[in-house]
Formats: sequence, structure tokens, C-alpha cells
Amino acid sequence: MRLAVIGGDGIGPEVVAEGLRVLRAVYPKVETTEYELGARLWHRTGETLPDSVLDELRGHDAILLGAVGDPGVPSGVLERGLLLRLRFELDHHVNLRPVRLYPGVTTPLAGDPTIDMIVVREGTEGPYAGAGGTLRRGTPHEVATEESINTRFGVERVVRDAFARASRRPRAHLTLVHKNNVLTKAGDLWSRTVAEVGAEFPGVEVGYQHVDAASMFFVTDPGRFDVVVTDNMFGDILTDIGAAIAGGIGLAASGNLDPSGAHPSMFEPVHGSAPDIAGQGVADPTATVASVALLLEHLGHTAEASRVDAAVAASLAERASSGGGRRSTREVGEELAARAAG
Amino acid sequence: MRLAVIGGDGIGPEVVAEGLRVLRAVYPKVETTEYELGARLWHRTGETLPDSVLDELRGHDAILLGAVGDPGVPSGVLERGLLLRLRFELDHHVNLRPVRLYPGVTTPLAGDPTIDMIVVREGTEGPYAGAGGTLRRGTPHEVATEESINTRFGVERVVRDAFARASRRPRAHLTLVHKNNVLTKAGDLWSRTVAEVGAEFPGVEVGYQHVDAASMFFVTDPGRFDVVVTDNMFGDILTDIGAAIAGGIGLAASGNLDPSGAHPSMFEPVHGSAPDIAGQGVADPTATVASVALLLEHLGHTAEASRVDAAVAASLAERASSGGGRRSTREVGEELAARAAG
Ligand SMILES: CC(C)[C@H](C(=O)O)[C@@H](O)C(=O)O
Ligand SMILES: CC(C)[C@H](C(=O)O)[C@@H](O)C(=O)O
Repeated sequence: MRLAVIGGDGIGPEVVAEGLRVLRAVYPKVETTEYELGARLWHRTGETLPDSVLDELRGHDAILLGAVGDPGVPSGVLERGLLLRLRFELDHHVNLRPVRLYPGVTTPLAGDPTIDMIVVREGTEGPYAGAGGTLRRGTPHEVATEESINTRFGVERVVRDAFARASRRPRAHLTLVHKNNVLTKAGDLWSRTVAEVGAEFPGVEVGYQHVDAASMFFVTDPGRFDVVVTDNMFGDILTDIGAAIAGGIGLAASGNLDPSGAHPSMFEPVHGSAPDIAGQGVADPTATVASVALLLEHLGHTAEASRVDAAVAASLAERASSGGGRRSTREVGEELAARAAG
Repeated sequence: MRLAVIGGDGIGPEVVAEGLRVLRAVYPKVETTEYELGARLWHRTGETLPDSVLDELRGHDAILLGAVGDPGVPSGVLERGLLLRLRFELDHHVNLRPVRLYPGVTTPLAGDPTIDMIVVREGTEGPYAGAGGTLRRGTPHEVATEESINTRFGVERVVRDAFARASRRPRAHLTLVHKNNVLTKAGDLWSRTVAEVGAEFPGVEVGYQHVDAASMFFVTDPGRFDVVVTDNMFGDILTDIGAAIAGGIGLAASGNLDPSGAHPSMFEPVHGSAPDIAGQGVADPTATVASVALLLEHLGHTAEASRVDAAVAASLAERASSGGGRRSTREVGEELAARAAG
């Protein structure tokens, strides 16, 4: 496996080191190349993603990213210039985010809910397209627009991916989340596409929910969801609610996938670079390790993926029962590696 | 007070009747005109909001709306044709939604959180503008766009309203919620406007959060919010999360305000028409009554507004302590009216 590694900023490199430790424990044949991208590079050179680096990244089987950003970088620079550029250039149209409450993990929700869903978020279009503009900036007549661009091509492929995932799950249920009563053009495209692709998956039960109602149900009744498919912006919001209900952003894993395999997929914890605790060796690497499980799964190493996932589950259960004394990033990584190696 | 009343469909007329009962109990000088708008009108005539009705509505001091819609109306017809048309035609740019957990009310959140915030949602632009279109519909090359239109004029007035509200609250804290790291054009306009208008309100502390993070904090730490100002779409989502954490959509009140007074403002519970329980007299009118408190407040009847609000609070507290046996819509309305009348 040729793996590109982008540790990034803050706690990024620390958690990535543990992700690699666990990866190697179950799958030793990994050749890594490290890339310095993120706030540090930007401060030094003003670059976010040099073309030469992008070209090199394309030559890998997958990318593991920690987190990028620091308070000194203006909002949007690394997001649009690096993170979203990677998603768009590498055609990461399936943004995969499991929302699963592991046994023993504390949730802010009362009453011990069961939470086990996958959110399939579109990753290369919608409101994230970057289209729009500003007229008369800084005057009382300023107009700023943002355009959500949705294509049948783009919607269909992510909807098909979501149906395929749903069809492999015991409940085989798919919920489309959109706002087709207000965003009638894009909503119509999404709804029709789900109806049409759904005909190819007669075993999958299909539901629809407006994004506002879905956001509510994530909190009041998350057990009703199995696979959720949604657009880029709604998926951004829903997966953070998902992280909130399933133990916090510190546990949330994600994969930015090109399921066709034409480009390397990228795996990253959902959390940020947390500059406040960087360098202290106290960051929890669990979300990164869970992202490594997604990586292994994506590359077809299903048995290894399951072992990493089981290690995460077992570790979280034990942390709960032992009261979870504070351990270092490395200690957690070593424990997870040992468990996964079995 | 000249009040236009739109009962609407399903449980709408039932809850509105109780809202009026409570209104009259504290403020008897109300002259009402009823308008039949909603699914029934649409089924009969195909109309959503006849121009003549819109003209008549303009002649009132305020509008009280129950809920509209039934499963036979295609998605979007009443939303765009009636609800949003009213907001746009009557310039309801401040969509006011208190998110308050009354003592005794059950929340899905663990650990007894304190929740007392106001969401000021922009109501007349953003992604709700209705701009955008569809090209090559029904072909593999279909493109559907939705355009978010944001103006300095539109953003500034709602931001100023939110600052004014924040300045009157003990905590005097305002959070702008947007996604300015991705929606860089609109986000820049909102952020600059908040910074500039904020200079007029030195007593108000200002924070910013991305919508995904804010959605998470609504669940994990709602106590951090005091006044939230946000765009139309983000506000739609956040206020449903707000409803979820503060006792459910059955308690959520809202006002669609034109604070200038040039057009009548409209008050409505956030819940829908609930066709499944319509006509049984079991719908909870509390959200409508809480919306009546907003109506009174908006028209300057502050003492009466407080009495209605206190009645709601007292009733909810008692329902909690008495185990809350099932009561009819009318019984709840009569209780609230009696409490408010004092
Ligand atoms: C950092 C930002 C561009 C990104 C997004 O909005 O997609 C993040 O919030 C995420 O969810 O991965
Ligand atoms: C019914 C719909 C148009 C409306 C909205 O999206 O604003 C509703 O969800 C609300 O929040 O009032």
C-alpha cells in the first residue's frame, strides 16, 4: 500500500502517528510519503496545495490526513485552497461518515439511544461548488451570491453508492435528506434520482425527510436512521450533529471516497487541529484510528478493517468501565495497535 | 387590534382557536377576520394566495397562522406559494424563534441543561430567494441550481435587530452562525456586517461559529448561546434543533416580523398540520399560545405578553409535576386563558 500522509497542524501529526501505528499493526506492507501541507506551509510560502504535490498525491493508493489550520490563517484559505481542493480534484464524491454510538460511550442524549447509521454526503458539488460572487462589495448595495450546483451525474453516483451500502445492511433503509419544499430545483433532481435509482434496489426501503426535520430527529430519535444520503451542505451539518450525539467530534471518522478508484481516497478524523492542546501528547487518536478502519475497508482489506474497528469498540468499552483515566495519545495508540494486532 | 386569522389545515384551526381564546383573555379588543388558505383552498380552487387576500391581509395589525398542508398537496406548493410568499411579500425579514427550555419540560438531552436563547433568522433572502433553475431536466445531463442571494440591505437590518435584542438581554451575547470558510462570498458579507453593526453596540459581546459546529453545540452545550443571528437556511435547521432540545416542535413558537411595522407581522407555531391527529381535539395548543405572546410583545403589549408567557411557563411546570395526564386542546387552552387572565 502506497500511502500519502498529511499530518497537518496542531494535533494532526500526533494523531496520525497513532493511526499509522495501528495500520501497520494489522497491515505491515505500507509505504508512506509525508507531505507538509496546512497552516505551516501557508505561513512559510503562501501556498496551500502546490500542483506538484497534488500530482504526487495522485500516485498513491490512499491519503491519511490529520487536521489542518491554526488561528493565524484567515477563514476559508485552507478550507477552499487545500481541503476542498483535494476533494474536488480527486473527485471525492462520496463523503462517508458513520454515526455510531459505541457501547459504553457517553452521549448527550438521555435514555440510552441506539445509534448506528452511515451518512453518505455528496462531496463535489452543491453549495460547495464555489460558484457565486460579490457585487458592490463594501457598499450599502452589496450583493453576495452562493450558487448550489447539482448535476444528475453528480447526484446519481452518490445516490447509487448509498443504495448499494443500504442494500448490504440488515435494515436496508435509506433516507434522502433535502429541502425539496423550498429548494425546489435541486430538491426535485435529488428526489427524482432517488426514485429512479431506487428501482434498481427493490430490497431497500426508502424514506424522505426535510433537513430541518431530520436534524430534529437526529436528536430526538436517531434510531430511525440507517443510511442517510444528502447533499454537501446538509451533510456537513448532519454529520456534526451525528458526531455530537455519538460521543463527540473526538470520535468521528470520515472517508472522502472516489469509489471508482481512479483517484486515491482520503481518510481523516472530523475534528480540527485543536491548537490549544497541540504538542502535549494528550489528543485522542481514536477518530483517526477509526478513519484507518474506513481506509482498510475501502481498499478491500475487510478483515483488517474489522479488527481495527473491533479494537476501537473494545477500547471504548473498557475506557467506560474503567472510568477512563487520562492517557496519552501514544498510550491509546499503542493499546489500539495491540488490540488490533490481536 | 385588527387580527387576520389563518387557521389552515389539520390541527391548525384547533390550536388557533385556543390561541385566540388566550389572546382575548388578556387583550379583549381584538377584531378578527378569518381567511381560508392552505390545502383545502388549493384542492378546491388551485389557488395558494389570491392577490385580493394578500391585499386584505395588509390591512391588519398582525396575522395569526395555525398550520397548512396535507399529504395530497405536492411538496413546495404551499411552502413557496403561501408561506414563503407571505414572508416575502410582507417583508418578514426577522424570523424570530425563541429556544427556551421551560422548567419541568422534558428534553432529550441528558444532564438538565439550561437553554434560553433567541434565534434571529433572516426571512426574506439567502437560499430561500427562489433563484436558480433546471437545465436538461430528466436527462443524464441535467443541471439544477439554487442561488443564495444575500444583500447588505437584507443582512444589515436583521443583524441590527439581533444586536438590539442582545443588548436588552442580561448576557448581551450575540453569535453569528454561518459557514464563512466555505460560502466565502455570503459569509464575508455576513461577517463584515456583524463587525460593523457591532461597533454601534459596544455592550454586546460577539462570537462566531460555523453552522456545523453550532449545530453540534446546540446539542452538547446549548447554554453557550444567548442570541443567535443567522441566514434563512441555517436558521431553519438550527431552530428545529432548538425545538428538539427545548421540549419538541410541539412547544416551539415563532414570529415572522417586519419590525418597521410597514407590514403586518405573522405569528405561528413551528409545528405542522399533523393530519394524523386532526379533528380529535388532542393537539397541544401551547406553541400557538406562546406565539400569541410574541404577537403581543411585537405590538407593544408587553405586560400582556408577559402574562401569556407566565401562563405557559406555569402550565408546563404543573403538567410536569402532575405527571401531565392527557388533556384536550380546549382544556389546555382554557387553562392557559385562565392563568393569563390572572
Ligand atoms: C473544514 C470544512 C471545509 C469541512 C466541510 O465543511 O466539509 C469540515 O467542516 C468537514 O465537515 O469536513
Ligand atoms: C414550511 C417551510 C417552508 C418552513 C421553512 O423552511 O422556513 C418551515 O420549515 C419553517 O421553519 O417555518
